[in-house]
Amino acid sequence: MVALSPLAPSVFAELRPLDGVRLTAHACGIRYQGRDDLMLVEMAPGTTAAGVFTRSSTASAPVLWCRKALTGQSGRLVVVNSGNANAFTGQAGEDSVRRTADAAARTIGCRPEEVFIASTGTIGVRLDDSKITAALADAAATLAADGWDKAARAILTTDTFPKLATRTARIGGKTVRINGFCKGSGMIAPDMATMLAFVFTDAALPAPVLQDLLNQGVKGSFNSITVDSDTSTSDTLLLFATGKADHPAIDSASSPALRDFRRKLFDLLLDLAKQVIRDGEGASKLVEIAVTGARSAASAKRIALAIANSPLVKTAVAGEDANWGRIVMAVGKSGEPADRDRLSITIGGVPVARCGEAVEGYDETPVTAHMKGTEIRFDVDIGIGRGRSTVWTCDLTHAYIDINGSYRT
Amino acid sequence: MVALSPLAPSVFAELRPLDGVRLTAHACGIRYQGRDDLMLVEMAPGTTAAGVFTRSSTASAPVLWCRKALTGQSGRLVVVNSGNANAFTGQAGEDSVRRTADAAARTIGCRPEEVFIASTGTIGVRLDDSKITAALADAAATLAADGWDKAARAILTTDTFPKLATRTARIGGKTVRINGFCKGSGMIAPDMATMLAFVFTDAALPAPVLQDLLNQGVKGSFNSITVDSDTSTSDTLLLFATGKADHPAIDSASSPALRDFRRKLFDLLLDLAKQVIRDGEGASKLVEIAVTGARSAASAKRIALAIANSPLVKTAVAGEDANWGRIVMAVGKSGEPADRDRLSITIGGVPVARCGEAVEGYDETPVTAHMKGTEIRFDVDIGIGRGRSTVWTCDLTHAYIDINGSYRT
Repeated sequence: MVALSPLAPSVFAELRPLDGVRLTAHACGIRYQGRDDLMLVEMAPGTTAAGVFTRSSTASAPVLWCRKALTGQSGRLVVVNSGNANAFTGQAGEDSVRRTADAAARTIGCRPEEVFIASTGTIGVRLDDSKITAALADAAATLAADGWDKAARAILTTDTFPKLATRTARIGGKTVRINGFCKGSGMIAPDMATMLAFVFTDAALPAPVLQDLLNQGVKGSFNSITVDSDTSTSDTLLLFATGKADHPAIDSASSPALRDFRRKLFDLLLDLAKQVIRDGEGASKLVEIAVTGARSAASAKRIALAIANSPLVKTAVAGEDANWGRIVMAVGKSGEPADRDRLSITIGGVPVARCGEAVEGYDETPVTAHMKGTEIRFDVDIGIGRGRSTVWTCDLTHAYIDINGSYRT
Repeated sequence: MVALSPLAPSVFAELRPLDGVRLTAHACGIRYQGRDDLMLVEMAPGTTAAGVFTRSSTASAPVLWCRKALTGQSGRLVVVNSGNANAFTGQAGEDSVRRTADAAARTIGCRPEEVFIASTGTIGVRLDDSKITAALADAAATLAADGWDKAARAILTTDTFPKLATRTARIGGKTVRINGFCKGSGMIAPDMATMLAFVFTDAALPAPVLQDLLNQGVKGSFNSITVDSDTSTSDTLLLFATGKADHPAIDSASSPALRDFRRKLFDLLLDLAKQVIRDGEGASKLVEIAVTGARSAASAKRIALAIANSPLVKTAVAGEDANWGRIVMAVGKSGEPADRDRLSITIGGVPVARCGEAVEGYDETPVTAHMKGTEIRFDVDIGIGRGRSTVWTCDLTHAYIDINGSYRT
């Protein structure tokens, strides 16, 4: 593991036990030596499941499996290995997932379709699942309610720190807990930078409600971050509800009783997503890009992502250069409706361009000072509508090239 | 000007005079000191004009001007300055273009709408057009038939070499000449890396025919290259025909008499476009990506560009790493129809993946040797249709970050 990201949180979240969830990690030697590379989570009977996955048309074998397993709406085990993505491994890869699910199901006595599998690591190398299946019984024997940190560390690859978050929420006067952890240091990037996230709650929520909440929550969090615009074959976000909390029954994601839970869940998802950006490959600055005044929210998001993914914007941020002309360029290239003469840009709260022109005689001193910090903010008003969206990214540095130019060697 | 690109051609094309065209360059001190920064091309009366421009919604004032001027179908002068893009300069920028066109038209006695203007340099800084207009008469006095090299050098910004190309073609038994030059070292990138190209022929072609030819020719050349996916506010490609050649009249771009001309023109456009990639910011390798077997040609092109623009593919090339998993990733993220189990990848002629899996026991030695060269080739067969497209890009290196992280300082 390389040096800790300069953007790492100063304190890592400590997760308390969550009723119905036990976790563990194990070293089974898939690729890494001397560290855990297998993670197991066991959930109580009755646990409901929801998930969202990469949109890649070359999705990995575990992603294909999870999509199918989700139709059963029930989850009892999560099995994750690091070091090998089991992607682009053809039928052999799918067979490997099937054998792992069968063996894992036997370990705790559930159906294979209740076993969710994720893999992260190199693409195109067959996964020796016998290393996993041989380790399952030993691993299962160490499942524990306080295994959160250990589990979060076992799934890391090029990450420089474990990413955990926790919240409590009230549903119908009862307190429920939400615990989650994830890995990833490209948003979405392949090889060792796939994004995997696992979130658990003791709330009692039917699977369709859980799925609705997740679909909504992912928009403003995991689907609003980018390191390098590259989408992994393996991105997986799973949400499980053990149902151990004793609150009134909920039958819809839009139930008023879920107001606090929804807010806390979305907040936790954004917390985890931003931790991924803080660990972005080579990142030295976290960049928040808020677009307002676009034709629609979807249009605002496409503009924000065009800015966030622009190599020229990202290298300017790395160089601490308040080069707002590149933001204009990125708005223009997004293909979204925009009017040069209505466009305004603010950097770190200081207006630098307004209505299609540089703000005359603006004082660059505070802007330059802002660019030297580690948290950069661009506000871009398109000036033609009410659509708004915020995305987060990091800068593009020499370290990104070092990490990715020599990854396999 | 920084060190010559390692991919620069060993010999630069020498352009011979072309009947009806005179060129010159002049130092008017817009931004650079001690070098020419104003270029003038005069074309004979009767010259027809065609053009294609950036699709940016924040296009520069000169681009807006040229689009309007093109409706007159006639060109007598091209005026280009380097050092200032006159982009995002509001109404002041448009007024500046208008004054320049008026003054230039008076210099040779033509209509302002026959004057085509392009600017390249920083965005968002007002252009002091008085420096240009004050220099026009002196510059015009030095117009000469052999000014090609001088003109090609005056429009450079971050380029490390002038980009020229010439061809001869036969139309109806007569020989015509095509001369062109361009600048650019991001495809399409803003600030100093805008792409400008100017192509001239002594053929006699009506403006609509010229425009048809240009629209076709740009697809496989300037619209098939990318350095960093960033689109300039100023990209401009103009094609002029002086009509001095004495060949039979042509009334359609699909006329059989144009077969050789079309081939030579397209070849020249690709030659110029590839020179832009050879001078890509920080480029150390030229990468040709040929996609076959896609659903359609448009789909093939989108897949090829997804590969070409992937930071992870580009850094792998920089690191001389035959990391084909990243090509799989890029195909998957393109959003285009693809089937994991039909996908095949060849690097430098060596099959590395076939039908959704690594080629078992393939010899990586020749592939590694290929990656160490300066011209890299990826062949990607999607295996589901007949659509094909080839694009060219360069690698993403530390030098790109150096150039763009500190551009303005």
